[in-house]
Amino acid sequence: MSLLVRNARVVTADSDSVCDILIEGETIVAIGRNLPVQADQIIDATGKIIVPGGIDPHVHLDMPFMGTFSSDTHETGTRAALHGGTTTVIDFVLQKQGHSLREALTEWQGRATGTAVGDYSFHMAVTDFNPNTKEEIKDMIAEGITSFKTFMAYKGALMIDDAQMVGLMQEVKQHGGLVTAHATNGDMIDTLIAQHRAAGKLTPLYHYLSQPEVTEAEASGRFADIANYTGVNSYIVHLTCEGALNQVRRATERNQRVFVETCIQYLVLDASLYEDEVNGAKVVMSPPLREKKDQATLWAGINQGLVQVVGTDHCPFMWEQKMMGKDDFSKIPNGHPAIEHRMELLFSEGVTTGKISLQKFVEVTSTNAAKIFGMFPRKGTISIGADADLVLFDPEKTHTISADTHHMNCDYSAYEGWELTGKIDTVILRGQVAVEGGETKVGRGYGQFIKRGKTAF
Amino acid sequence: MSLLVRNARVVTADSDSVCDILIEGETIVAIGRNLPVQADQIIDATGKIIVPGGIDPHVHLDMPFMGTFSSDTHETGTRAALHGGTTTVIDFVLQKQGHSLREALTEWQGRATGTAVGDYSFHMAVTDFNPNTKEEIKDMIAEGITSFKTFMAYKGALMIDDAQMVGLMQEVKQHGGLVTAHATNGDMIDTLIAQHRAAGKLTPLYHYLSQPEVTEAEASGRFADIANYTGVNSYIVHLTCEGALNQVRRATERNQRVFVETCIQYLVLDASLYEDEVNGAKVVMSPPLREKKDQATLWAGINQGLVQVVGTDHCPFMWEQKMMGKDDFSKIPNGHPAIEHRMELLFSEGVTTGKISLQKFVEVTSTNAAKIFGMFPRKGTISIGADADLVLFDPEKTHTISADTHHMNCDYSAYEGWELTGKIDTVILRGQVAVEGGETKVGRGYGQFIKRGKTAF
Amino acid sequence: MSLLVRNARVVTADSDSVCDILIEGETIVAIGRNLPVQADQIIDATGKIIVPGGIDPHVHLDMPFMGTFSSDTHETGTRAALHGGTTTVIDFVLQKQGHSLREALTEWQGRATGTAVGDYSFHMAVTDFNPNTKEEIKDMIAEGITSFKTFMAYKGALMIDDAQMVGLMQEVKQHGGLVTAHATNGDMIDTLIAQHRAAGKLTPLYHYLSQPEVTEAEASGRFADIANYTGVNSYIVHLTCEGALNQVRRATERNQRVFVETCIQYLVLDASLYEDEVNGAKVVMSPPLREKKDQATLWAGINQGLVQVVGTDHCPFMWEQKMMGKDDFSKIPNGHPAIEHRMELLFSEGVTTGKISLQKFVEVTSTNAAKIFGMFPRKGTISIGADADLVLFDPEKTHTISADTHHMNCDYSAYEGWELTGKIDTVILRGQVAVEGGETKVGRGYGQFIKRGKTAF
Amino acid sequence: MSLLVRNARVVTADSDSVCDILIEGETIVAIGRNLPVQADQIIDATGKIIVPGGIDPHVHLDMPFMGTFSSDTHETGTRAALHGGTTTVIDFVLQKQGHSLREALTEWQGRATGTAVGDYSFHMAVTDFNPNTKEEIKDMIAEGITSFKTFMAYKGALMIDDAQMVGLMQEVKQHGGLVTAHATNGDMIDTLIAQHRAAGKLTPLYHYLSQPEVTEAEASGRFADIANYTGVNSYIVHLTCEGALNQVRRATERNQRVFVETCIQYLVLDASLYEDEVNGAKVVMSPPLREKKDQATLWAGINQGLVQVVGTDHCPFMWEQKMMGKDDFSKIPNGHPAIEHRMELLFSEGVTTGKISLQKFVEVTSTNAAKIFGMFPRKGTISIGADADLVLFDPEKTHTISADTHHMNCDYSAYEGWELTGKIDTVILRGQVAVEGGETKVGRGYGQFIKRGKTAF
Repeated sequence: MSLLVRNARVVTADSDSVCDILIEGETIVAIGRNLPVQADQIIDATGKIIVPGGIDPHVHLDMPFMGTFSSDTHETGTRAALHGGTTTVIDFVLQKQGHSLREALTEWQGRATGTAVGDYSFHMAVTDFNPNTKEEIKDMIAEGITSFKTFMAYKGALMIDDAQMVGLMQEVKQHGGLVTAHATNGDMIDTLIAQHRAAGKLTPLYHYLSQPEVTEAEASGRFADIANYTGVNSYIVHLTCEGALNQVRRATERNQRVFVETCIQYLVLDASLYEDEVNGAKVVMSPPLREKKDQATLWAGINQGLVQVVGTDHCPFMWEQKMMGKDDFSKIPNGHPAIEHRMELLFSEGVTTGKISLQKFVEVTSTNAAKIFGMFPRKGTISIGADADLVLFDPEKTHTISADTHHMNCDYSAYEGWELTGKIDTVILRGQVAVEGGETKVGRGYGQFIKRGKTAF
Repeated sequence: MSLLVRNARVVTADSDSVCDILIEGETIVAIGRNLPVQADQIIDATGKIIVPGGIDPHVHLDMPFMGTFSSDTHETGTRAALHGGTTTVIDFVLQKQGHSLREALTEWQGRATGTAVGDYSFHMAVTDFNPNTKEEIKDMIAEGITSFKTFMAYKGALMIDDAQMVGLMQEVKQHGGLVTAHATNGDMIDTLIAQHRAAGKLTPLYHYLSQPEVTEAEASGRFADIANYTGVNSYIVHLTCEGALNQVRRATERNQRVFVETCIQYLVLDASLYEDEVNGAKVVMSPPLREKKDQATLWAGINQGLVQVVGTDHCPFMWEQKMMGKDDFSKIPNGHPAIEHRMELLFSEGVTTGKISLQKFVEVTSTNAAKIFGMFPRKGTISIGADADLVLFDPEKTHTISADTHHMNCDYSAYEGWELTGKIDTVILRGQVAVEGGETKVGRGYGQFIKRGKTAF
Repeated sequence: MSLLVRNARVVTADSDSVCDILIEGETIVAIGRNLPVQADQIIDATGKIIVPGGIDPHVHLDMPFMGTFSSDTHETGTRAALHGGTTTVIDFVLQKQGHSLREALTEWQGRATGTAVGDYSFHMAVTDFNPNTKEEIKDMIAEGITSFKTFMAYKGALMIDDAQMVGLMQEVKQHGGLVTAHATNGDMIDTLIAQHRAAGKLTPLYHYLSQPEVTEAEASGRFADIANYTGVNSYIVHLTCEGALNQVRRATERNQRVFVETCIQYLVLDASLYEDEVNGAKVVMSPPLREKKDQATLWAGINQGLVQVVGTDHCPFMWEQKMMGKDDFSKIPNGHPAIEHRMELLFSEGVTTGKISLQKFVEVTSTNAAKIFGMFPRKGTISIGADADLVLFDPEKTHTISADTHHMNCDYSAYEGWELTGKIDTVILRGQVAVEGGETKVGRGYGQFIKRGKTAF
Repeated sequence: MSLLVRNARVVTADSDSVCDILIEGETIVAIGRNLPVQADQIIDATGKIIVPGGIDPHVHLDMPFMGTFSSDTHETGTRAALHGGTTTVIDFVLQKQGHSLREALTEWQGRATGTAVGDYSFHMAVTDFNPNTKEEIKDMIAEGITSFKTFMAYKGALMIDDAQMVGLMQEVKQHGGLVTAHATNGDMIDTLIAQHRAAGKLTPLYHYLSQPEVTEAEASGRFADIANYTGVNSYIVHLTCEGALNQVRRATERNQRVFVETCIQYLVLDASLYEDEVNGAKVVMSPPLREKKDQATLWAGINQGLVQVVGTDHCPFMWEQKMMGKDDFSKIPNGHPAIEHRMELLFSEGVTTGKISLQKFVEVTSTNAAKIFGMFPRKGTISIGADADLVLFDPEKTHTISADTHHMNCDYSAYEGWELTGKIDTVILRGQVAVEGGETKVGRGYGQFIKRGKTAF
């Protein structure tokens, strides 16, 4: 089975050329001008920009939460992702405190295997690091799960303390893995939440005010400090603000490198949305949206090479679920639906406006994640032997986001009515047309688990 | 005329695959596995690593100096560069104070046109910014000379003061160009040199002691400050030390990006060489070699993405020329021969040792310079439509550097006797085999002037 | 009852003059040249330097520990302090987790009242901040206990987490008090201790290696972050190292002021002492002694005005007690005897060597502590109406420290055999000659509790 | 001749007590409660606060400028200073380029000797550092002129370049002196001024816009860098902004201490005044007034101990002189009248508002300058043997500033109509009542030249 994509403007992190791409089976086998070949299927991509399939390394699918689950399953979530050009996601397996990593992995495999439409991998969230967990680290790496997530917040549920952190980092370092962190000072936040609740301050605005910039800046610095001491590869997820990025910048002065991910919403939305006492719930997430100054910092960070990845922290809940917290912000499930719009939002708000180059766009949506998370050069690029994961953009086509038309299993959109420039037209995953003309062309179970290796950046 | 390179491990900044490369004329037209094509010439590259032709954006060829010239002409210099895998160089045109940019350009064109063996471009060194010079900026950009070098040292010869700097930056900013700097505090250095000479301290060690770290750190910070005020794209050449890089790191906190180039010698040599009263002259250059801590900083800077380019500041002088300063360090012509060994040294000391990845190697030897200096995607990558500039490395072959065998017009080597792992076997420039089996296969005048556009990073 | 001290060189933080001091009762009533007065007692202080009575704001007397107590009682400790020119100490009351502040205060009052020979006050160490504790903050302030100590280490015994920290700071802020911290990352340290023990690394050196610089730097930054958020007056006790002071220095960039105390041992001793497998135990304390670079930082910090206080963290244990940990560093009681030698050590190592001025000496041994801890102008100065607390130094007299001659209840000295220049000759506390000619002239119970007010600096 | 001041609240940097002060001749001889003495003159100071006579280390009296002179002579300027509680000023002697320091000193002595009403000393502004000047440094120190001012701006008139700076610092270091700087990047400023003028932007606002924050921040950092290299004692005059103070704060991280002076106007006025096209001229000074954020930084800097001195840069011009620049901001003589109101403004805006303590007030108006500039303990304090320089404040009395009532030889006030709390009632200089009830009680020539020693802080 072969597929020939003709005459596109193919853009990667280090190239930009009009050419054809030939795919055999799941793999790119040739790239060239007027490739003199036959193919079972031909797509004329004249006028399109093709970029590598997106990688979203921060999604929560079918995540158990407060007796319910985040509203996208591995099926609906990866399908929506495909519609938005994201061909691979990395989901979080959450160890349950008192239980093993293996148990958690088995549970998550049970939900994802055979259901995912797009490709996926797992991070392992270590919520209980103890001598038994320690033994499992190398097993997880052998399974191709080479990144270990930590929570510095959510005490009693997900949080590990610094005693566990240093031990985990040392163990992961020894086996060549990567430690990532939700870097906010959960203890401080818990106090502020409790104070607001005690004072009857219950609207979404107080979600924001319970997580001031310092809670993230502090924890980001602490995480970097411990990582530097242990020498482990480190990565901060969903970094949102100037204070936190400045901790990473300062860490460069001791010759340290800390990888940084921000998420699309922190680049394009801001905290003024929390003033809406009802709709504010739609963007209740942790960390919360920040200020305009922080957006400026994040765009600069991307261009400085200090923010390598733009993910989503996709964690959708139906409006009904969100309304569990209508009288108390602390009961609003955290998260918002974004997996589908990451690339189009970044294209429209970043590339079209001239804030970032097309190469930078590819780096932060795909290539860097592939390198950092050990999927390169199979993923993250358009090159010979790589998986044929391609996204065809119609760069000047405008379109409007709406919950009515999106594919995520969520009955609202935080971007409802946003008009974007640049629309994804066709998406190819491992050689198969996965999305075309708004239709999903691959089915439940098409997605494969991607075994990952070590960071190579 | 077509050329097919078969079966290489092709490595770029964002790919790594075993495949063939097909070249028509000067251009890459196809990349693929087992490309089913005919070609006029076929090279079997099995076992080789192919990377994009190197770009050395910091060379001084045939540069007038103290009544003589740096010892490599555009012919010998670019030929030697080719032997070392560097297919494009950017040379510095030096405005003469009191004269126009155009005059200087004409002079340099006179020396380079028709003589260069490899491709070349020019930076324009503005040494006298005045209302007339100001008018010429846009003309130079129209000529494809989009980067403007400044010297913060060498008062009375090359230095501009901050009054000129701010004016130049504003003008360059307006036309979308880039300002680069030799960022050392020339005034401080002049005093220290004079003091050492007055005290009879005349050995090469005092060259080093006349340019302490602070002289570079200070000027780097000042350059960044003025650049930030004007908003111009900025680039520091031959950055050598922790103090200077920390200024750039701190500038990130105000959302600024300053591009940084180091040179190969600062990564692999150190100031202990100045203790040799005779041979110290071989490595008299400005800034001088630094300390082990500074090497560590520079390697880290590369991996942090804050040092984007490794150049050479190639500026060779024959031993006889160097001996003009045998009794007085201040009379030793500054510079050392390096154009030929940059890529092999970095491969051996950086990639083989595991300090940097192959992708990073390509970035800092080629891709980043192409992007920063407006030659991308024609140069700096291996992709369809790009110039067919290819370097075939035999990654495990060892070899020894010697002035007896190098191609630079210089009768000594600062790396004499160094044994390297990884040897360049074949070099292709715009579709022509330029070097093969140690032989130069293209002649005087093969090199073309590369007109450059704006920074796109 | 009046006392006239004649003809001394009287030195305070802002004066230096040869004059007489007249005391009526407990109070200084006149300072002048050749005061034309009669007095009940006259001391000829010709040739002496008189400075204000020292204030040591960091001592642990009679502190319950592992079923025993630190070896100096309020009686022996304050007596020894007097011999070293320290007329006032601030001891730490330790809340017991699960119990009230009041209970702890009552217990400490029980030990100190009627026994102390020198003046004393209390800090309240809050080890369990909860709604009940919160209510007690203002009561403690009403008692004259305006400073609240926190431990960021010793989990399960003394440590509060950041959730408690932010709440405590807010409450203390509201009532105008001060929060101090033992700022080390106890969680990290606990892991490192456990690892060393598990690996059979049990000598005193591993005490040091279990508390690397980062554990203190991190916690100092975190404490400053939370303090900045709450706006409370803050103070770091026993700061030892460059990494920690740099956190305070960086905090100045956000217009924050964090008061800093170091202790005499960190200025004059270093970590090489831990290499002695037996005697290393003598200097096992937390934080541990550091490196020469850290000493340089601390002296600089004093002269920069960023280290305001030199205390002792006096916490002596008899050699037999120290030997509880002879086979396991983690069982060595932490602390060393220093209360008696702080001022003479600092005079000899700081003033005599020219590292600090006499005015700075007075500031860091007395005046600043009085201002920060709300005892100014009653204590910390030599002025009209102030308590007549005077220390007469014989500035050129040399003497030798020895456990044989010191007055602390401890059978070893960490400074055994040190020869110092500058010896304290006479000490006056509230108008009474307390020490003279090596003899204690005031008795058990002479010391008074000093009720303190707010910080005024 | 003796004078007894009774019953005042005497406040110094380290004391605060109600007492009497006895003066014999020029000197304080006793301080006490109810001093049982007779005196030739008695002042009842009940209800008054007495602080040490102010020291303003930054004034320009009778300074030659553009063919005219600053409008206060040593007589009128020091008289006005006395009315404002400033008993000692340090004026700047300006070397003329091409001439010696001695010539300049002789010229200034000619103007000041026998005319000054209050005490004065001189800084020597080195505007031409050459081998001859170098020889004069130690002579000036022998004259009691131990501080050497440099200008990093005003090229061709006052500016020295960094080549001279490093040489000067080395020489001053060797003789134990202090180097101070007007730290702004004059070259940048010259370009911006020229650009504004060329563009017809001639109102006072463009004075401000020609000296953006970066011009001061950059130069402050550069000055600190060179000072650190040479090890000389260093002091930045009239620091105005966050960017500049942050350079000093960062310098603390390398264990450096740079003394900082701000001026009263930078604490209480801001750049919005330049919007007035006419009256803006009244506050044209260099550096210009800054923003509210900068005021906050400076107040914080004072409390952090990093800004040690509040001076004035008093340099008055009559309105007619100011109007030389009514059509071109660059022709407005720089400076404003402030010598008289520094202490009352700082008392009202700083102490009364609670921004700083009374002790800090004394430190920054008097004590610190005395220590830094080698006049301590003769000046800067109220202690035995010190000059009897006393300022009696009526702390609650309100009054209004007006050119109609001030004593400076200037026909406008930048503070016209300001209502202040806290009025100076009586000023004593070396035992003489110099100002009382608004009348000057000492005459022309009463002021003495104060020979200064080395920095002792």
